[in-house]
Amino acid sequence: MARQLYELCGTDPERRFSPYCWRSRMALAHKGLEAEVVPWRFTEKAALGFSGSDKVPVLVDGARTVADSWAIAEYLEEAYPEAPNLFQGTPAAQRFLATWSDAVLLPALAKLIVSDIPALLGAADRAYFIESRERRFGMPLGQVTAEREARLPEFRALLLPLRHLLKFQPFLGGPAPDYGDYCVFGTLMWPRAVSPLPLLEPGDAVHDWQERMLDLHGGLARAAPALAA
Amino acid sequence: MARQLYELCGTDPERRFSPYCWRSRMALAHKGLEAEVVPWRFTEKAALGFSGSDKVPVLVDGARTVADSWAIAEYLEEAYPEAPNLFQGTPAAQRFLATWSDAVLLPALAKLIVSDIPALLGAADRAYFIESRERRFGMPLGQVTAEREARLPEFRALLLPLRHLLKFQPFLGGPAPDYGDYCVFGTLMWPRAVSPLPLLEPGDAVHDWQERMLDLHGGLARAAPALAA
Repeated sequence: MARQLYELCGTDPERRFSPYCWRSRMALAHKGLEAEVVPWRFTEKAALGFSGSDKVPVLVDGARTVADSWAIAEYLEEAYPEAPNLFQGTPAAQRFLATWSDAVLLPALAKLIVSDIPALLGAADRAYFIESRERRFGMPLGQVTAEREARLPEFRALLLPLRHLLKFQPFLGGPAPDYGDYCVFGTLMWPRAVSPLPLLEPGDAVHDWQERMLDLHGGLARAAPALAA
Repeated sequence: MARQLYELCGTDPERRFSPYCWRSRMALAHKGLEAEVVPWRFTEKAALGFSGSDKVPVLVDGARTVADSWAIAEYLEEAYPEAPNLFQGTPAAQRFLATWSDAVLLPALAKLIVSDIPALLGAADRAYFIESRERRFGMPLGQVTAEREARLPEFRALLLPLRHLLKFQPFLGGPAPDYGDYCVFGTLMWPRAVSPLPLLEPGDAVHDWQERMLDLHGGLARAAPALAA
């Protein structure tokens, strides 16, 4: 059966760095499902026209096309109910880990690592990326990430509610990972792929959880090209 | 059957303002369970000696004593499985709303409203509260809350992940409230009980959710004495 996941990459199709694509990639692995990678780049909007979306991830599963990482997770849970559950109870009850990742973690990461990304992109994507991100931040990318190492303690402080949670359980979902884990972990795969900045310190419960996540599903995420140590 | 919940109050036993007691009070109501209020004050540590805890809430349910709001929620779910569920799936999967409330919401609120509390306390409690909180913050309480209205926008920005979540669903737990809702809502019952500061603005999705929560269980929380409008 043809199953394909359109995933964001730069010039190197192996270096996939979208937080949302990683959520879907890990969700597929959790369900024990294979999916061919279709490398996709920022400026290839037309290639997604069939999906009704202009952003990845897009999953094509036989006759079915699903865009948006949350919708993909819900689709996988419905279509493959016999595989290990991505959600415990209803998806809605666990969605806060996704919205916290989107509203808190992602913008904080952007301010640390956004200037690392252009070097990984081809010329057209690079121009698109720099122009769109400088507009979003209202300043040159270099300025966004100036003195970023000095801002690491502030970033690490944002992870405090995760640290509290990990006092009680090895994964954010409890004794085993679930889609909430993949939302946070997928978001952290973005800096891992594009930046040498050491975000987490050994001994930090979040670092140790990330190590456990990297080992899941045969070390799928650990095997991905990374710039972070 | 004797069921009692020890809850924090000040000189007025009706004005109960502990975030954690409110979590347990709402959890009991969710389960359709009555429990007599036993008013408890900061300096009455000895009165809780029987429980092995020096903090409220403490639930006494017949022969069973349970301290700690999370443990109480887990106990209620186990002891009354036929009543409406507090958790969807395993409690662990939903715990992030609790740890976010504890690690992010509560400290931010403390910096806004802590100086409102002494006026509600008797003499012994007031001395205990001021001394312990000034030690915690490392400065006089009045200084903690100076210019607090100017810091309201910063507080409201912290609620962004809740706002994102409420775009998708009317309650944090989904179509109906669950214990995750009570964790955040209980935390917001603290400022409501002790401070006239208008934390949330009408039109804010979090404000509108709070209104729905105040209406639950026959308007239980709305009927509680409040200083907030």
